[in-house]
Amino acid sequence: MKSLATLAFDADDTLWHNERHFRLTEDKFAALLAGHAPAGNLRERLLAAERRNVHHYGYGSKSFTLSMIETAIEVTEGRAPASVIAEIMAAGRELLAYPVECFPGVAETLSGLKDRYRLIVITKGDLFDQERKLASSGLDPYFDAVEIVTEKTPDTYRKLFARHGPGPERAMMIGNSLKSDILPALAAGSFAVHVPHELTWALELAEEPAGHPRFRKVGRLAEVPRLLAG
Amino acid sequence: MKSLATLAFDADDTLWHNERHFRLTEDKFAALLAGHAPAGNLRERLLAAERRNVHHYGYGSKSFTLSMIETAIEVTEGRAPASVIAEIMAAGRELLAYPVECFPGVAETLSGLKDRYRLIVITKGDLFDQERKLASSGLDPYFDAVEIVTEKTPDTYRKLFARHGPGPERAMMIGNSLKSDILPALAAGSFAVHVPHELTWALELAEEPAGHPRFRKVGRLAEVPRLLAG
Repeated sequence: MKSLATLAFDADDTLWHNERHFRLTEDKFAALLAGHAPAGNLRERLLAAERRNVHHYGYGSKSFTLSMIETAIEVTEGRAPASVIAEIMAAGRELLAYPVECFPGVAETLSGLKDRYRLIVITKGDLFDQERKLASSGLDPYFDAVEIVTEKTPDTYRKLFARHGPGPERAMMIGNSLKSDILPALAAGSFAVHVPHELTWALELAEEPAGHPRFRKVGRLAEVPRLLAG
Repeated sequence: MKSLATLAFDADDTLWHNERHFRLTEDKFAALLAGHAPAGNLRERLLAAERRNVHHYGYGSKSFTLSMIETAIEVTEGRAPASVIAEIMAAGRELLAYPVECFPGVAETLSGLKDRYRLIVITKGDLFDQERKLASSGLDPYFDAVEIVTEKTPDTYRKLFARHGPGPERAMMIGNSLKSDILPALAAGSFAVHVPHELTWALELAEEPAGHPRFRKVGRLAEVPRLLAG
């Protein structure tokens, strides 16, 4: 790993809290529908809608809001009152405005790495959402580039690491999603560091590539410099 | 204009039809609400919602769908049935799937310019929407780069023309929106060519900078090569 030139970071739940805001919104959604539909499999129905809609809408909070509205109509068999839909929309709008809270030590870690590596963000999601969160995080000055993409495939990493450095073999991807950050970056020929997060969206689950020679795992982002030094 | 190195094209209503799909969706929206609210100022109320929401949601069809739902609830004073909301969502989803139809001569024009200039797309909007439309258009192979941005400011053009060529002074922006394509590109120091489109979204209207030394106007995109030669 001595010849590493580029370090790429995922954003949501790698640099800052994100999933917990979605979970809180899901709780509000469940509470709003409490009197109107059987609680039973509400979250499963919502997840099924998200899974369906990701191909139509992409990722992000607007997409999630539309999936909540769709599910509300579905589980009430068309009897959801407009007032409930309006409250779902308000809950969705809060997802677009919460203050971003970075994980402990993130700014210090980036600051320490900045002069030795090219630092970039590679994040999947809604352009508007992700730019908003990056601006709110205050981390922008540490990065040489920010790439917001619709999907993270091996080809995404190949292209981006060629654009921002000498290519995938001398790049490392750091993130919390095995499915989006780790497996495709390894497939592209890069190093990949998993920083697990206690909350992971069901659509991001995957098997850990334990034993892969270019795979590493750390408990938190602040351990990355020690990993690079070791 | 002899030293031009980079030609940048707006996408929606410059390379392909877009606004007319939004207008058709608006017609459906009005028809859906016909029995539930006074027709009077429905479109004005929708436009007001779009104007408010662009700061929360950004541009694109998901944003537009959420504005339609919000307006439906508002104009019916909370009495819009869930079935109407579901139909609005279906109409919104069609906006995410229509086959893209390029304007006449666009592919030939790009093909003829490709070897002499660096061609890029600079489009504002939803990442997912714009990638989908570009793929559907078949125009992707003509472009050296595609930049999807949240807003088009003079600074946007300065940065992008520095990234894709020798800078704004040797670049030309070609598009249908005076507000987003022409005025900020001129302010950045670039040339700008207005290709008016018969339908322009109210939020994109602006005064024509007639007489500006770096401003040009053509009737259709296919006239750009002659303009460059002249």
